[in-house]
Amino acid sequence: MASQDIVLLAHGSGGTLSHELVEQVFVKHLANPILSALEDASLLQLEGEGRLAFTTDSYVVRPLFFPGGDIGRLAVCGTVNDLSMRGAVPLFLSVGFILEEGLPLADLERIVSSLAQTAQEAGVQVVTGDTKVVERGNADGLFINTAGIGLVPPGVEVGASRARPGDCVLLSGAVGDHGLAIMTQREGLQFEGALRSDCAPLNTLVQALLSAAPHTHVLRDPTRGGLATTLNELAGQSSVGIEIDEDAIPLHEAVRAASELLGLDPLYVANEGKLVAIVPPEEAEAALAAMRAHPLGSEAALIGRVVDEHPGRVILRTILGTSRILEMLAGEQLPRIC
Amino acid sequence: MASQDIVLLAHGSGGTLSHELVEQVFVKHLANPILSALEDASLLQLEGEGRLAFTTDSYVVRPLFFPGGDIGRLAVCGTVNDLSMRGAVPLFLSVGFILEEGLPLADLERIVSSLAQTAQEAGVQVVTGDTKVVERGNADGLFINTAGIGLVPPGVEVGASRARPGDCVLLSGAVGDHGLAIMTQREGLQFEGALRSDCAPLNTLVQALLSAAPHTHVLRDPTRGGLATTLNELAGQSSVGIEIDEDAIPLHEAVRAASELLGLDPLYVANEGKLVAIVPPEEAEAALAAMRAHPLGSEAALIGRVVDEHPGRVILRTILGTSRILEMLAGEQLPRIC
Repeated sequence: MASQDIVLLAHGSGGTLSHELVEQVFVKHLANPILSALEDASLLQLEGEGRLAFTTDSYVVRPLFFPGGDIGRLAVCGTVNDLSMRGAVPLFLSVGFILEEGLPLADLERIVSSLAQTAQEAGVQVVTGDTKVVERGNADGLFINTAGIGLVPPGVEVGASRARPGDCVLLSGAVGDHGLAIMTQREGLQFEGALRSDCAPLNTLVQALLSAAPHTHVLRDPTRGGLATTLNELAGQSSVGIEIDEDAIPLHEAVRAASELLGLDPLYVANEGKLVAIVPPEEAEAALAAMRAHPLGSEAALIGRVVDEHPGRVILRTILGTSRILEMLAGEQLPRIC
Repeated sequence: MASQDIVLLAHGSGGTLSHELVEQVFVKHLANPILSALEDASLLQLEGEGRLAFTTDSYVVRPLFFPGGDIGRLAVCGTVNDLSMRGAVPLFLSVGFILEEGLPLADLERIVSSLAQTAQEAGVQVVTGDTKVVERGNADGLFINTAGIGLVPPGVEVGASRARPGDCVLLSGAVGDHGLAIMTQREGLQFEGALRSDCAPLNTLVQALLSAAPHTHVLRDPTRGGLATTLNELAGQSSVGIEIDEDAIPLHEAVRAASELLGLDPLYVANEGKLVAIVPPEEAEAALAAMRAHPLGSEAALIGRVVDEHPGRVILRTILGTSRILEMLAGEQLPRIC
């Protein structure tokens, strides 16, 4: 590959090659008046009322491209979703790239283009960014960090400590697709039926849900550690018990088959386009209907209840009719999943 | 080293070890009520009026510890300074860590502690964060990304395109210290006289400067690419010429000696605690006095003028009395400097 087709250390120098990369890749795909001013910091105009929400995630997924997405799409979805889980309307993103010397520029451009398309899909603007380059062997292709800013509309009060006994636990769709799509792609495995990441921006799903169920107590996306870990976090942060029906948890057949073969429990596998909503019982039906009417929530289900008993613990009623404690993920199930 | 003393892949799993790391390292050093809520996104209370400023940088400096600082201190200073260069008062930071499996936890804790101390020094709160772990050999120790939010007070209007012919170009102190401190540490070189990074948060210096010279047109910190590259960016973005007196640029003797020996031009070497201010001539004296009265600006100097001629170009009047074009950095002078 010719040296003009790959990332060079000088692309991270701050000098002429850095400026060329910014203009020819980043500004080309992400252009908007705020970003294109190329200031040290960007000034934002916040339309409307609300409290400011702020979040960040780094993305180190391997491989960079996978069925259903790539690291660029993931870097937008993950941060948009973290904002959405506070009930915020996501507005602005920052993007920081750490590039490995030798990365094909075509790969970088494909990723930036996907990132730009996903930002458009989610209705957010990338307004500030940074690029660093490290020597060959000192990073694995590229890593991305995004931080995000959104506004929480007046009246919206969701948080991980707000679950109350009697609340219904809803899940927006099937679990395990993202983690298993990555894992099988990485290991070069082939399964009957398509395994595709569910990677998607959930902000419009959340907006539909909050319109239908304005007293929603908790929203959280079950990413690393999977549904089981998320439910344990929520039980802990809210000091309540949670009881889940295993039978009610949506699961795609391809995920079930791949999990069995690989010896993985899909309840511990990361999702990137699903959410858990904990809502008061009187709003549960409306919440479920609103999610099912949205393309990203068509498989939404009521999977359990919040209870007074065993605070901090999640109990799974299995398909066999027995009950067991569903623990938080211990150890590492699938590294480099996001 | 025992396995409990190093970073493991499972520290990035999202499960129990991730939670332990968050509690025992991050929350321990960085605790504040917003961060400690451990929500997907943090809600911020902005006191006072102003426009929102937003910025991000990733930090990949090698080595992680160097004379005058470390990657944790740098990660706060860089982002605080980018906000300050828009005239914003920095308020909140996000922090994303990418850790290499095997990193000693003691190193991580030393870095997080330094980051926390620097945040306190700068008066900013770390309110949201993320940690990822990659396998041994896939990242170089650790990388940090910070994003920052600040408020630009009403009436403050600074930007890279606002320099006007007749303006004075001020520099807050000597150049080259950061880059040469890193370089000599990395290469194991010893020089007469201490080379120390100038890494420092510049927000209080900027506030003093803006009080004395409220019509300041431009602020920018000459980081990657050094003073020469920064001046070229400003000449380009403002469509003006800039003329600089080489003789007026403050330079520490140790930097001069090390630069000569290494064949480096200190005008292209990164700084992490200096700023360029371009101010209307009638406020130049007050601006200079305000900087000199601040501990981080005691060596501040008037180094040149903005002119109508040769827009986009920087001309250096050398110590020998000749003039030459000062170009933007071409190629890579010092990789992994920040």
